[in-house]
Amino acid sequence: MIYFDNSATTKPYKEVIDSFVKVSTDYFGNPSSLHGIGGQAEKLLSQARHQVAQLLKVRAGEVYFTSGGTESNNLAIKGTALMYRNRGRHIITTSVEHASVKETMNQLSDLGFRITYLPVDQSGRISLLDLENAICHDTILVSIIHVNNEIGTIQPIEEIGKLLKEYPKILFHVDHVQGIGKVPLDFFQCRLDFCSISGHKFHGVKGTGVLYIREGVTISPLFSGGNQEWKQRSGTENVAGMVALAKALRMTMEQSENKLSDMATIKNFLIKELNSIEQIVLNTPEEHSAPHIINFSIRGVRGEVFVHALEEFGVYVSTTSACSSKKQAVSHTLLAMNVPKDLAEGSIRISLSFENTLEEATKVVNALKMAVQKLSEVLK
Amino acid sequence: MIYFDNSATTKPYKEVIDSFVKVSTDYFGNPSSLHGIGGQAEKLLSQARHQVAQLLKVRAGEVYFTSGGTESNNLAIKGTALMYRNRGRHIITTSVEHASVKETMNQLSDLGFRITYLPVDQSGRISLLDLENAICHDTILVSIIHVNNEIGTIQPIEEIGKLLKEYPKILFHVDHVQGIGKVPLDFFQCRLDFCSISGHKFHGVKGTGVLYIREGVTISPLFSGGNQEWKQRSGTENVAGMVALAKALRMTMEQSENKLSDMATIKNFLIKELNSIEQIVLNTPEEHSAPHIINFSIRGVRGEVFVHALEEFGVYVSTTSACSSKKQAVSHTLLAMNVPKDLAEGSIRISLSFENTLEEATKVVNALKMAVQKLSEVLK
Repeated sequence: MIYFDNSATTKPYKEVIDSFVKVSTDYFGNPSSLHGIGGQAEKLLSQARHQVAQLLKVRAGEVYFTSGGTESNNLAIKGTALMYRNRGRHIITTSVEHASVKETMNQLSDLGFRITYLPVDQSGRISLLDLENAICHDTILVSIIHVNNEIGTIQPIEEIGKLLKEYPKILFHVDHVQGIGKVPLDFFQCRLDFCSISGHKFHGVKGTGVLYIREGVTISPLFSGGNQEWKQRSGTENVAGMVALAKALRMTMEQSENKLSDMATIKNFLIKELNSIEQIVLNTPEEHSAPHIINFSIRGVRGEVFVHALEEFGVYVSTTSACSSKKQAVSHTLLAMNVPKDLAEGSIRISLSFENTLEEATKVVNALKMAVQKLSEVLK
Repeated sequence: MIYFDNSATTKPYKEVIDSFVKVSTDYFGNPSSLHGIGGQAEKLLSQARHQVAQLLKVRAGEVYFTSGGTESNNLAIKGTALMYRNRGRHIITTSVEHASVKETMNQLSDLGFRITYLPVDQSGRISLLDLENAICHDTILVSIIHVNNEIGTIQPIEEIGKLLKEYPKILFHVDHVQGIGKVPLDFFQCRLDFCSISGHKFHGVKGTGVLYIREGVTISPLFSGGNQEWKQRSGTENVAGMVALAKALRMTMEQSENKLSDMATIKNFLIKELNSIEQIVLNTPEEHSAPHIINFSIRGVRGEVFVHALEEFGVYVSTTSACSSKKQAVSHTLLAMNVPKDLAEGSIRISLSFENTLEEATKVVNALKMAVQKLSEVLK
């Protein structure tokens, strides 16, 4: 089995699961309890928070634990909308966001907020000029994805942050779920107010995430209750899950230093080979794209057909984002990039983790070639 | 160590953790992925959902997986408020709810909803007449806790449900977090539209919960995105966590049949012994109270002091609910029951699980007596 669908989810590291088991078994207390069993759990939670903060180069008090990327994105955006609705009802985002941002915007639109969806160029990037032109007197939030989950395009977050320094009242949220560990992001330099990450995208367990909230920023919580996480996210903390997330993040960041170049080598090899296959058109741009995501289309073949064809060779990839794949909707990212509909329908995403090797990539290329040939013959 | 704080959290069963590990390791796929690895994860998630549905005697399509009790309560209440705000803005609840309901109501009140908090009698129960009188033309939701988390009082859910049958447009939510497995609740008979449970309260892992939503009822989601959980709760599903929850629920329900009488024996023994201690006043009522929660006050001693005194004997209990314990606020449940403030400040909660034994209870009673004596001498 060769798993090249790491942007959908990753296999948790053994050490991460071991930590989860250890905490769940030996430190099962409720961190809010007054007694020592609660105190031990609280100490572990605090250690996990400090570890995450150190890895993200932020303060521990800026790390809010959540149940995942979708919650983090919803909390940042809805929490801001609800909190600052009397200051303004205009929000700016892009036309290439993950569903958890896109659908949140749609929901806010139904509630009377005005949403500007910035267009993108052929490489999937927004323009700073478009962003600046979109800013209104009542804009309260700009929410931009860092690394697009379908094609891997990197948005100019640092330049956007620089521009937004001129607008101190506008909050800035970045969906960093696909970027973390693969494409560096300096939260302070980029003037971020919010930043979302998800544990299961970097070998943590599912049901864990982080929302970075800059010190001094307050939002309206989605979960009210026992006032955990500085009143911004109530509910008994998933201590074992967050210790696991911290460990997965540390392992990812440590590998990041050495393995990013290997990943780039694998990506370049795959791109060269994909370019040599006549029926294949690359959708991922050459520049400003992440080292772990490659999106391409096969002329005349629907993506889901190709996914299953590759699976016969033990190779696992996806069509679009996992959460959109079963709807069989055409990728809105590709349509926003003006990729023709028939090509967008045949799109395939390969997504790597640090665990993947060049040897696997070679096997994947062979499987790809055989699958293309097989399907081409059928379709003749 | 004797852990008598099971209403704060429970120790996950070994078999439950084993299931979590097995799923996280061997079935780590994203249930939304088109390929076989996703398919396996989806199958496990579906099995867990069917198992939970069978145990709760509801349909599988009525089981929505969440991150816990706080999320389930917030989702039911805010989701209803947002969905039906144009039909009405009046909600009825009680003055003895868990913080995740109480604070949610406060948040909705700030947003322009009218909240009626039903008073309770000395045993902590609401009156049906009060409820009926509170119903207005624009009431959209009634939200009532089943088993109070601080004192164990059981509300007359079935009678409330019967009354609400006369008001088909009013939705009915029950916070069943403390009741599950200990006090039976027939969702259909009680005319429930929503019901919340939390995995870590019955030896599941933290970060897992269920919201029952009756077939045909639609709410406005807190998490928008990839449209998981029938569009009511987006986000990659915590498959391992939900398989663990289903296993914990099965183990709890199976034991429920035999162990409830043992639990009642332990509770009766504890109450008899507590009643024999001069300085102690019982807050948990004799009638209509759950078999696993006993709340009492010690005259002249603050609850947190007593918690620490007991801890020296290796006995772990709590003052109030875990999530309120660090705020050192006086229990709002006890105040609503008209318990004098000085007694409410000295309240202690013992909460049992099926793992606790009469032998442990005997040791706890001895520790209690020694701690009371020790503190009485200090306070003389």
